[in-house]
Amino acid sequence: MAKKKTEKAAATKYKPLTPAIIAEMEKIVGRQYVIHSDAEKLEPFSHDEISEKEYAHMPDCVVRPAAAQEIAEIMKLANREMIAVTPRGAGSGLSGGAVPVFGGIVLLCDRMNKVIEFDKANMTITVEPGLVTNEINEIVRPAGLFYAGYPMSLETCYVGGNVAENAGGGKAVKYGVTARYVLGLEVVTPKGDIVQLGGKLVKDVTGYDLIHLMVGSEGTLGIFTKIILKLMPLPKASVDLLVLFRTPDEAIAAVPEIMTKSGIIPTAIEFMDRLSAHAACKYLNETLDYKDAGAMLLITVDGPDEQQVMQQYEAIGEQCLAAKAIEVYVADNHTTSERVWKVRRNIAEAFKVQSPRQSLEDIVVPIASIPKMVAGLEELSRKHDCQIPCYGHAGDGNLHATPVMNPKWSDQQWHDRLEQILVDMYKLTASLGGTISGEHGIGHKRKKYMPLVCQAAFIDMMRAIKLALDPNCVLNPGKIFDC
Amino acid sequence: MAKKKTEKAAATKYKPLTPAIIAEMEKIVGRQYVIHSDAEKLEPFSHDEISEKEYAHMPDCVVRPAAAQEIAEIMKLANREMIAVTPRGAGSGLSGGAVPVFGGIVLLCDRMNKVIEFDKANMTITVEPGLVTNEINEIVRPAGLFYAGYPMSLETCYVGGNVAENAGGGKAVKYGVTARYVLGLEVVTPKGDIVQLGGKLVKDVTGYDLIHLMVGSEGTLGIFTKIILKLMPLPKASVDLLVLFRTPDEAIAAVPEIMTKSGIIPTAIEFMDRLSAHAACKYLNETLDYKDAGAMLLITVDGPDEQQVMQQYEAIGEQCLAAKAIEVYVADNHTTSERVWKVRRNIAEAFKVQSPRQSLEDIVVPIASIPKMVAGLEELSRKHDCQIPCYGHAGDGNLHATPVMNPKWSDQQWHDRLEQILVDMYKLTASLGGTISGEHGIGHKRKKYMPLVCQAAFIDMMRAIKLALDPNCVLNPGKIFDC
Repeated sequence: MAKKKTEKAAATKYKPLTPAIIAEMEKIVGRQYVIHSDAEKLEPFSHDEISEKEYAHMPDCVVRPAAAQEIAEIMKLANREMIAVTPRGAGSGLSGGAVPVFGGIVLLCDRMNKVIEFDKANMTITVEPGLVTNEINEIVRPAGLFYAGYPMSLETCYVGGNVAENAGGGKAVKYGVTARYVLGLEVVTPKGDIVQLGGKLVKDVTGYDLIHLMVGSEGTLGIFTKIILKLMPLPKASVDLLVLFRTPDEAIAAVPEIMTKSGIIPTAIEFMDRLSAHAACKYLNETLDYKDAGAMLLITVDGPDEQQVMQQYEAIGEQCLAAKAIEVYVADNHTTSERVWKVRRNIAEAFKVQSPRQSLEDIVVPIASIPKMVAGLEELSRKHDCQIPCYGHAGDGNLHATPVMNPKWSDQQWHDRLEQILVDMYKLTASLGGTISGEHGIGHKRKKYMPLVCQAAFIDMMRAIKLALDPNCVLNPGKIFDC
Repeated sequence: MAKKKTEKAAATKYKPLTPAIIAEMEKIVGRQYVIHSDAEKLEPFSHDEISEKEYAHMPDCVVRPAAAQEIAEIMKLANREMIAVTPRGAGSGLSGGAVPVFGGIVLLCDRMNKVIEFDKANMTITVEPGLVTNEINEIVRPAGLFYAGYPMSLETCYVGGNVAENAGGGKAVKYGVTARYVLGLEVVTPKGDIVQLGGKLVKDVTGYDLIHLMVGSEGTLGIFTKIILKLMPLPKASVDLLVLFRTPDEAIAAVPEIMTKSGIIPTAIEFMDRLSAHAACKYLNETLDYKDAGAMLLITVDGPDEQQVMQQYEAIGEQCLAAKAIEVYVADNHTTSERVWKVRRNIAEAFKVQSPRQSLEDIVVPIASIPKMVAGLEELSRKHDCQIPCYGHAGDGNLHATPVMNPKWSDQQWHDRLEQILVDMYKLTASLGGTISGEHGIGHKRKKYMPLVCQAAFIDMMRAIKLALDPNCVLNPGKIFDC
């Protein structure tokens, strides 16, 4: 009840867009780059990749600036007129970060998609926020370099969104997440200042680390207009292992053993529980002998040459067998590699055959707690009469547990049950020392669950920082917490 | 002039410690853990490792709490009574972070030195801030793990200080700096709340990344009472290469080539200019043939076994020779390894023979700009008639350029000249896209130089965040910026 009141109060705080304000925006970015008064054209900007309609909200207008200076002017205008501004990249998010929950302006970064500089000698690339992430690797690969940020959506998502959400992905065990590669930012602040943070510097303790306060702040603290990314040497060889275990316990117990006994940090350690693995294998008519597998690990290693990668995967394979794996399949060429990754990638599709409605979750727990989490999810599944396949990034403890609607339920039943399932799931996660998002973010989808996993004092600190930088709360309001 | 006024205003803001307040503190931590009214006992807490007396300031009292709850009570008391509180670890800092510039309370963390939990399965260790950094590795090594934070002072410094300063060190090229390993913090806020941030989670995007706002904030935003650190698999083999080049340009040009062409990220790439290398070799009576060397690189590689390390150093050695190195010395055992690292470690000592007064600087530039920096430093050296050896972490662009007092100068001359040298050096650094501290921090030593390398808007953002979390500015005031 109290929350509803807050939201209503915040909503009335923001003013409607008048024709005069729209004219002013047209003057800033050019008339053809302002979309308004056309529901059909505005609709695509009312949601991200979450399909549930309850999370959508129409913007009053979409502006497509081409430069930091234009964004600065828009932010000054928004402050003067008390209008909410929601920055947006490719709209590939999974927590509603780019949804304009109070209407107002969607600030679309698609025109700011240039590579500003590829600096081979410093192993950096400077880009605008609207660049598609995967394009970076196309550009830097010939120079023997690669960008190690690797969200699963890298063929469509924008770098700016990756930075705003601190995107994770499939290579985080060895390479870490987006944050590790952000060396510098040009940021338009909520008040409309243009601030340079960091630079082509791999070490920098000159003042507070505002770069990493910005990374993952979900577009609530600033709009990135230049991003300086660190590049890494391109691995010259890579091999995948698909490892079958009898139980999730045995699979997960192997994870730290692999790293501590072999001394190797794999690129990826993906986990699939019995339900996920069997559903995907069945869906793909996979012929490998998976019947006894109660869980699978998909392990990738990469390195500077084939010989070193061979040594690594042999050492890891031995550790897996010592840790009671029942089978280790080696995929050392493109065809076999695709085959094993297909199992991992087709889990969501496999469950769509059973039911079109799923809620892709993003919990993260200490890696040693994964077996308890998996057991707890099986219990929840029985309690709520709903399948909850569990798969994800085991090396990080980041699990995409995904409640799938029981086909017998009505939409309303699904809506009500899901609420209960999520509360139970998040409480269980918290009891295991975990939290509700490892890489997708909070947005407005998970905002109400924050008190389940963090202290009021933590939320108060975030709110104090938000209001210090954005006193009118005009930049992406209604996300993470209410302010 | 304006600055002096601000400092005076701030100084008068804080109130003196009364006997009643001291009695209250004695009640909180126990009488034997409060030091006051004894200049001799207080003096060691008036400075850190900076030897210049102008940076020292006496505390009015030193308190030695044993628990977060005690620290919380002290912070509440300090807010109520308007008393400055300066947290302190081992006092091994190099920027004055632990110096109580407005007197008041030094909050010493030496009694909070316990290992709370070593969690092998999650590859984490949870410690109190007063633990000596090196002790972590003693504890975790038998389990095949190591802590990759590696400040040069690790045998004396405390973990809490490392986190507060975001300490760098000799292994940052491959392993990054302290920040990468901090997964969780328990923080006492300036207002006296106890807040839990993060956990044993290697990925977490649940709200703002306040952990990394705290890391490197130099004790101005919170006092850490529990630190959860990520551990890594212990490398089982390591080799050092000492590589001689004709010029700094050739040495530095080799750095990105090594990484991009061999595909290997070395553990360390240390740089020594002619002046540093020759002085240290001469000081050590080193017999290797260094006469033609205009610069040296000291490169370390480590890995999971000897064979892989051998492959790595051979590939790197070849790249160095292809990049015009005149000689590559391999140190593959403890004795030879010690011999080459001795050259790097004895540079400061070698110059102490010439003059006892030096100013250890900590500039950082994009790696490709190191040759220009080195050339610029040679020019500054001629202009100011003062030797400025330059050495440090080339793989990070972090250079400990160190003006050494001309023995002909008086102390006053040194003082005045150094001021000019530093302004010139920092301006040059800024013009090359660099900044004034890579790992030592700003503290009060470098505060006045901040406007040379960052925008007023950046300082304003830091100040806004500081005041949002510490409205009375009682926690470590006078550091980084004035508030």
